[in-house]
Amino acid sequence: MTSEYDDATTFDLTADRAAVKLSSDWGIGNAVNGGIIMSLLAQATSAVSRGADGHGDVLGLSAVFLSPGTDGGGETTTDVLRSGRSMTTAQTVLTQDDTERVRAFVTLGDIDRYAEPITLNPQPPTMPEPDACVRSSDAPPEALSQSGLLSRVDIRLDPACVGWAVGQPSGNGELRGWIRFADGREPDLHSLLLFLDAFPPVTFDLGAKGWVPTVQFSGYLHARPAPGWLQVRTRTTTVAGGLHEEDAQIWDSTGRLVAQSRQLASARF
Amino acid sequence: MTSEYDDATTFDLTADRAAVKLSSDWGIGNAVNGGIIMSLLAQATSAVSRGADGHGDVLGLSAVFLSPGTDGGGETTTDVLRSGRSMTTAQTVLTQDDTERVRAFVTLGDIDRYAEPITLNPQPPTMPEPDACVRSSDAPPEALSQSGLLSRVDIRLDPACVGWAVGQPSGNGELRGWIRFADGREPDLHSLLLFLDAFPPVTFDLGAKGWVPTVQFSGYLHARPAPGWLQVRTRTTTVAGGLHEEDAQIWDSTGRLVAQSRQLASARF
Repeated sequence: MTSEYDDATTFDLTADRAAVKLSSDWGIGNAVNGGIIMSLLAQATSAVSRGADGHGDVLGLSAVFLSPGTDGGGETTTDVLRSGRSMTTAQTVLTQDDTERVRAFVTLGDIDRYAEPITLNPQPPTMPEPDACVRSSDAPPEALSQSGLLSRVDIRLDPACVGWAVGQPSGNGELRGWIRFADGREPDLHSLLLFLDAFPPVTFDLGAKGWVPTVQFSGYLHARPAPGWLQVRTRTTTVAGGLHEEDAQIWDSTGRLVAQSRQLASARF
Repeated sequence: MTSEYDDATTFDLTADRAAVKLSSDWGIGNAVNGGIIMSLLAQATSAVSRGADGHGDVLGLSAVFLSPGTDGGGETTTDVLRSGRSMTTAQTVLTQDDTERVRAFVTLGDIDRYAEPITLNPQPPTMPEPDACVRSSDAPPEALSQSGLLSRVDIRLDPACVGWAVGQPSGNGELRGWIRFADGREPDLHSLLLFLDAFPPVTFDLGAKGWVPTVQFSGYLHARPAPGWLQVRTRTTTVAGGLHEEDAQIWDSTGRLVAQSRQLASARF
């Protein structure tokens, strides 16, 4: 039995192109979540790189979002820009009906080579256990009906940072919580790109409303995650003129920082 | 009289291409500093974008470094990927002798539109005044002779984080200090890309040695800097397996965060 995530990230590879299908099952509003698109793009890029005797594990991915992905078919095209002894650098473009959705730089390597030894690892934040947190499945029905994503990932938010859900944002600009696949699939390396972009907008904690389209995204993957819940913290320190930057960090169940990202995105107040 | 920086970032534009010249005057070892390359690339991209009735101020720039820039001529080629009402997205590639050096995604807009109002601005770190800091011009002669960059930017490091220079790194993974052009030119928007990448490697503060090639870089520019000294803080929180991430922040003389970046780079211990 395959998982919902595996179904959503399958593709049909021919040389440097992969036929893909985006699904509103992973949507927020009419747009397909950028995280599931990046996970799919990472896997297609990995397959092309391996086919060209390059590396297969994503170490870093920088993307620009050119138009919202929509329900239906699409295609990725990958150019291997450089293939060295320790790293491969590629560029992948996702199009739907000849319209570019996402363009990304992907740096690949052998993740296990870069995962050890650990010189510096930031500690995960202190937060209540998942069962003592606020469940995404308890979101208002109108929010759930607009977001297929919310029923496919199980998010548990620290109660100390969900005041915004009842009109009392903390003003700290930080969300903390847990995340995993709702159907029990364990996380793997490339699924971290989904989890980096699956939390509610951190600007909710500042009183912002509504969806916040990503302009640029940059994520680094540091190690394969151990099985179990992932801990996520998102923060923003810089908000001005309708734009903000958001940092996300993910720790696995061993307390290892396995992924981090930064994005430039809109913010509506 | 033009400044050293203006001389180093001039170009000759023809349609979507700019003939450029890289100079080892801005080098570290044999490689031309990535920051001066990004400043030059940003200006060429801005010129192409304006010529296509797009926006002219860089808001975000994500780059992959494919091979070290060397002393001599080169060419940038810019593709405008998307031109909307509020933002333009472009891709620019820098080549020398048909070899790709740097490839970048550049998001442009009207910076003054996004600079205000300020909702959240991180406070600059507390550090001694520039005259009470350690000057880059006091670096050992062998370091100065290897780095043209070090004589063109005036860096003043907080004495609390230069122990590494005498074999006593603090282990904190943080550098703080001031920066400006040595010839007195005031900072402008696109020069912030140079200043984001001009400090010594933050891994020196952890006892690492030697040069740390950048793999991926992502920088955001938030506002035009006011005249005067810029305050810089670089930090790393994640170092493993010979790779690290480095965050840089720049505040202008009014205490406004005007730029920030994150990069994935090597680390040699």
